Amino acid sequence: MSPNYKFQGWMGLDKDAAKGKMVWQEYTPKPFEETDIDIQITHCGICGSDLHVLRSGWSASLYPVCVGHEIVGVAVRVGSKAEGGIRVGDRVGVGAQSSSCLKPDCEQCSGGAENYCQNHQTGTYSSKYPDGSKSYGGYADYWRGPSHFVFKIPDALPSDVAAPMLCAGITAFSPLKRLGAGPGKRVGIVGVGGLGHFGILAAKALEVDKLVALSRTSSKKADALEMGATDFIATDEDEDWAAKHANSLDIIICTVDSPKMPLAKYLRLLRVGGTFVQVGAPEDRLPPFNILPLLAKDLKIAGSSVGSPAEIREMLDLFAKKGVHTWNNNVPLKDANKAILDMDAGKARYRFVLVNEKHVSQVERNEARENKL
Amino acid sequence: MSPNYKFQGWMGLDKDAAKGKMVWQEYTPKPFEETDIDIQITHCGICGSDLHVLRSGWSASLYPVCVGHEIVGVAVRVGSKAEGGIRVGDRVGVGAQSSSCLKPDCEQCSGGAENYCQNHQTGTYSSKYPDGSKSYGGYADYWRGPSHFVFKIPDALPSDVAAPMLCAGITAFSPLKRLGAGPGKRVGIVGVGGLGHFGILAAKALEVDKLVALSRTSSKKADALEMGATDFIATDEDEDWAAKHANSLDIIICTVDSPKMPLAKYLRLLRVGGTFVQVGAPEDRLPPFNILPLLAKDLKIAGSSVGSPAEIREMLDLFAKKGVHTWNNNVPLKDANKAILDMDAGKARYRFVLVNEKHVSQVERNEARENKL
Repeated sequence: MSPNYKFQGWMGLDKDAAKGKMVWQEYTPKPFEETDIDIQITHCGICGSDLHVLRSGWSASLYPVCVGHEIVGVAVRVGSKAEGGIRVGDRVGVGAQSSSCLKPDCEQCSGGAENYCQNHQTGTYSSKYPDGSKSYGGYADYWRGPSHFVFKIPDALPSDVAAPMLCAGITAFSPLKRLGAGPGKRVGIVGVGGLGHFGILAAKALEVDKLVALSRTSSKKADALEMGATDFIATDEDEDWAAKHANSLDIIICTVDSPKMPLAKYLRLLRVGGTFVQVGAPEDRLPPFNILPLLAKDLKIAGSSVGSPAEIREMLDLFAKKGVHTWNNNVPLKDANKAILDMDAGKARYRFVLVNEKHVSQVERNEARENKL
Repeated sequence: MSPNYKFQGWMGLDKDAAKGKMVWQEYTPKPFEETDIDIQITHCGICGSDLHVLRSGWSASLYPVCVGHEIVGVAVRVGSKAEGGIRVGDRVGVGAQSSSCLKPDCEQCSGGAENYCQNHQTGTYSSKYPDGSKSYGGYADYWRGPSHFVFKIPDALPSDVAAPMLCAGITAFSPLKRLGAGPGKRVGIVGVGGLGHFGILAAKALEVDKLVALSRTSSKKADALEMGATDFIATDEDEDWAAKHANSLDIIICTVDSPKMPLAKYLRLLRVGGTFVQVGAPEDRLPPFNILPLLAKDLKIAGSSVGSPAEIREMLDLFAKKGVHTWNNNVPLKDANKAILDMDAGKARYRFVLVNEKHVSQVERNEARENKL
């Protein structure tokens, strides 16, 4: 049985797509397998990765690309071997990863770290499945992919609120959780943007003792404090901030990806044994840096990339239980080209979510309007 | 009671000291406190730090300096409040650290991490005690300092063999131990020098599964294999070594301090979740590097600096039990100026040890000769 719907979405044909030149086109999804799920998309967050990939910023993208990997919608086709107990009609989502080897002898896949599988990974867009077919993302009407990477959305989380959690949320949550962020810990979040606002929300949900937001100016201070930050540092405005706040943090999650970041000053903020985690993926290299502080204070510089399916479920449950609410700005899917330009210009407060108005119910449309206000 | 011995040693008066221009002079040690111990020095290893400090390579040194922080000798004066059950006549040693705050409310000092105390640390030389008096090292006849940082040397370890363990040995041992090096783990040691040879010896003593030594050429291959390495990579000779050995190691201890190190290739050798630990302290900054591999493979770049007193005792016990034997080249203390030039020229195989022949017994002199052969 072939489905009675078409796979159509906003396609980037070349690097110019990032300049707001995506075009609406039909495309051929991967062949349906019995482990797959088709999602009728209602919402898709706009992630910084989308811009990087549209302009081939990290590497040459597999044009034509349909970006978007913070996808929520309704399961409309569920393979007979699908995992996770998902049924047609369930509200589900998918994040940045769509497949890994899943072999029992893969240390990562068998150990709950599919996001670090070294044998095979398929990104949710601009990537290839093992059979060679391309993956396409969520600026679209429908999405198809393996059920192992599809998650039920808890009832307490509205779809537009849940969508950005699936990439930005888990990217901030995973390293915090793995490094033991919780009571007794002091956490800093560098950058108050899409990722950073989730860093603050996640650290607060994890009940850390101290939660410092760092941004260049104080323009986002009130927002950061409202999200749950206990302190705020404006690095372009506060004098001697690194000295004043030296040795005060256990964990820093760095969500900015500028190669000009003041890494040495951030390291100064860390207490003995502390960890600086880079989660924003820069297109350029880090500046030369002095490694001596790492020796003197037993520090670590780490990286982290999204999270595993188990971690995503844990995050969704925690965020549902704690009432964590994404600060999202909803935009109709038809305005995707304008939205990516606004995103690139830093206008999100703090995550644009594309709403596929053809697919949302009147109730969801009302919710979306309220969130926009 | 004043002791009937003088504090005399090889003093660096300015940066030229590193060119083999140390002069033998008397100096005034710290005032004796009842927590102190005086050591009649029999042996002192030559550490790379000695050269860095003689030439003010890391920062301006407190000339005149007497370097040397791999000191073994005999306790000749023991304060009434000395720790560790040390008695006059005991064979004892001291490493690179001679004091820390030791306050009960210091997280590091109370938690067995005195080497990372942020309130106060005194290096064994070119540093100051809380009372303002200067510290002087082991290229000398006697050493005076706090007993908390003085260790009994196990009977199974000859003095010349034990001395280099107190800085080079613990610098390699501490991060291996803390990162869980042992059965099931795969370890790489970058650099086969004073630190690196201890990295190999320590990882072997900890019974790791795989132990790869990395050096620029194969000139030290036979030695490295004899020390316990199971594999050897000559980075200037082996083609495509980073690709061939990709994803094969859990821990890399980097003992070289060249700012030109091929960091990206080292990171490629690490498996998912692996850690690269820098223990060689460079005078310059690391080159710009791409942080994306840290995100893709959940890697960490860490630093480590010597070890705590508890770790030093643990290492000495393990090395004594396992028969770990430093590869040392003994040199009379009177030839210290020539020895530091030879050290700087990379001639150590693998650690020069200065022997204070005035203070060693005939038995130790014989042992020293045997070790030199």
